[in-house]
Amino acid sequence: MTTTDDLVTTLTDRVQALEDRLAITNLIASYGPAVDSGQAAKVSGLWTEDGVYDVDTGAMHGRTEIEAMVHSRNHQSYIHSGSGHLLYPPHITLDGDSAVATCHSQLVLRDNETGVYRVARITANRWEFSRIDGEWKVTRRVGRVLDGGDEGRGILSSAL
Amino acid sequence: MTTTDDLVTTLTDRVQALEDRLAITNLIASYGPAVDSGQAAKVSGLWTEDGVYDVDTGAMHGRTEIEAMVHSRNHQSYIHSGSGHLLYPPHITLDGDSAVATCHSQLVLRDNETGVYRVARITANRWEFSRIDGEWKVTRRVGRVLDGGDEGRGILSSAL
Amino acid sequence: MTTTDDLVTTLTDRVQALEDRLAITNLIASYGPAVDSGQAAKVSGLWTEDGVYDVDTGAMHGRTEIEAMVHSRNHQSYIHSGSGHLLYPPHITLDGDSAVATCHSQLVLRDNETGVYRVARITANRWEFSRIDGEWKVTRRVGRVLDGGDEGRGILSSAL
Repeated sequence: MTTTDDLVTTLTDRVQALEDRLAITNLIASYGPAVDSGQAAKVSGLWTEDGVYDVDTGAMHGRTEIEAMVHSRNHQSYIHSGSGHLLYPPHITLDGDSAVATCHSQLVLRDNETGVYRVARITANRWEFSRIDGEWKVTRRVGRVLDGGDEGRGILSSAL
Repeated sequence: MTTTDDLVTTLTDRVQALEDRLAITNLIASYGPAVDSGQAAKVSGLWTEDGVYDVDTGAMHGRTEIEAMVHSRNHQSYIHSGSGHLLYPPHITLDGDSAVATCHSQLVLRDNETGVYRVARITANRWEFSRIDGEWKVTRRVGRVLDGGDEGRGILSSAL
Repeated sequence: MTTTDDLVTTLTDRVQALEDRLAITNLIASYGPAVDSGQAAKVSGLWTEDGVYDVDTGAMHGRTEIEAMVHSRNHQSYIHSGSGHLLYPPHITLDGDSAVATCHSQLVLRDNETGVYRVARITANRWEFSRIDGEWKVTRRVGRVLDGGDEGRGILSSAL
C-alpha cells in the first residue's frame, strides 16, 4: 500500500464519521416536524421495529405503541390547538455502529381559548442509536422532565 | 482510472455534500442574530435578489421588501424591547444544487414595561435554497404559525 | 506530486475543517447538559485554564471561578427546582486554529411552588475558541441579555 492509499483509507473513515453525525442530527431534527404534524408512521419509523420510547408516564415498546401515542386524544388535542415539540442541538457520542445523543427539549402549547402560548415543560433526553442495514435508527429514547428531581439531571449527566 | 482515483472522486462528492449541509446550517443560524440586531442588509443578503419570504401576514418579494420588514416600526419596537427570533435545528434534504430545510422557530418578546419575557408564537418554517455562483441562497422561506390550523402542520409535513 | 496527491491533500484540509465545525458544535451542545446537571468540572473543562466567561453580572476568570458559579447557591437552587440553559444552533466562523460562534440562548426556570415554567431571559452569546494541543477549548464566552439595550444586539452583530 502506498502512502496515498493509506491517506485515502483514513479519509474515508473520517468522512464516514462526519456523515454519521449529520445523519443522526438530521434524524433528531425530523422528530419535531413529524410529531407536530401528526405523521405517526414517520415518527415511529425513526425507531427500530422494537425500539423503546421511555417517557415520564411510561414506556412505549415498538412502533405500534409509538404510533398510538401520536394518534392519542391527548396528542391530537395538542397539535390541533398548536404545539411545538422543540429539540435543542444534541451532544453526540459516536462509537462505530452505535451512538448516544443528549439534548434538552421543550414543549410549547397554545391555549385554544386565549391563544396564549406557554412553556409546558422542559425535558432531558437521551437517544440511543444503532446502524441497522446502513441506516441509523433509534433503539431507545428516554425523556425525563426537568423539575428539579434526580432523574432529569441524571439523563443529562449520563452521556458526558 | 485506478481504484484510488475512483475513491478520491467519490470522497470529493461526499465531502462536498457535507460542506453543503454545514453551509446551509450556518446560513440558517445567522438569520436570528442578524434580524435581532437589526442588520437589514445581512438579513436580506441571505436570500437571492428576487427571493421570497412568505409569512402569515403576506409575502415579501425581493431584498428591498425584506429589508423594509427589518426597518419597520413593528420590528424595531421588538428589538428595542428585547426579542429572540429563535430557530431550532433544521431537517435538511439536499439534492445537488438545491435543498429544503424544515424547522420550528419561536418568537420570544420582552415586555418593556414589566421586563417579562413571553413566547409570542411558534412557527413552522420551510426554507428552499439554491446554489448560486457557488454560494447557497434562500429562494423562498415560508413561515406559518402553529396555532392548530392546517397550514402550520402542512409546512412541517411537506418536507418529510 | 501527482494530481491525485494534490486532491488528497486538499480533501484532508476540507475534512479537517468539517471536523472542526462539528467538534465546536458538539462542545457548545455539551454546555447545557453539563450546567443543568451541576457537573462543575465538565462545565469548566470546556474552557482553557485561564478562559473567561463574561456575563451581565460580571466576568469569571479561569476554571475555579466558573466552577464556583455552578456550585453557587443561586445555580443550585435553579437546577433543584428545574432549569434549562437552552442553546440555539450557533453560527460558526472558522479561521485555522481559532473560531467564533454566535448564538441565542434561553433560560427557562420552573417555579418550585407552582410547578410553572417561564422564560426567565434570552441572551446573546459570543464564544471564542482556540485549538490547544489538538482540542478545541473556549477562551472567552460573552453573554448579554436581550433586553432592548445596545450590548445584547452588539454581541449578535459583532460576528456576522
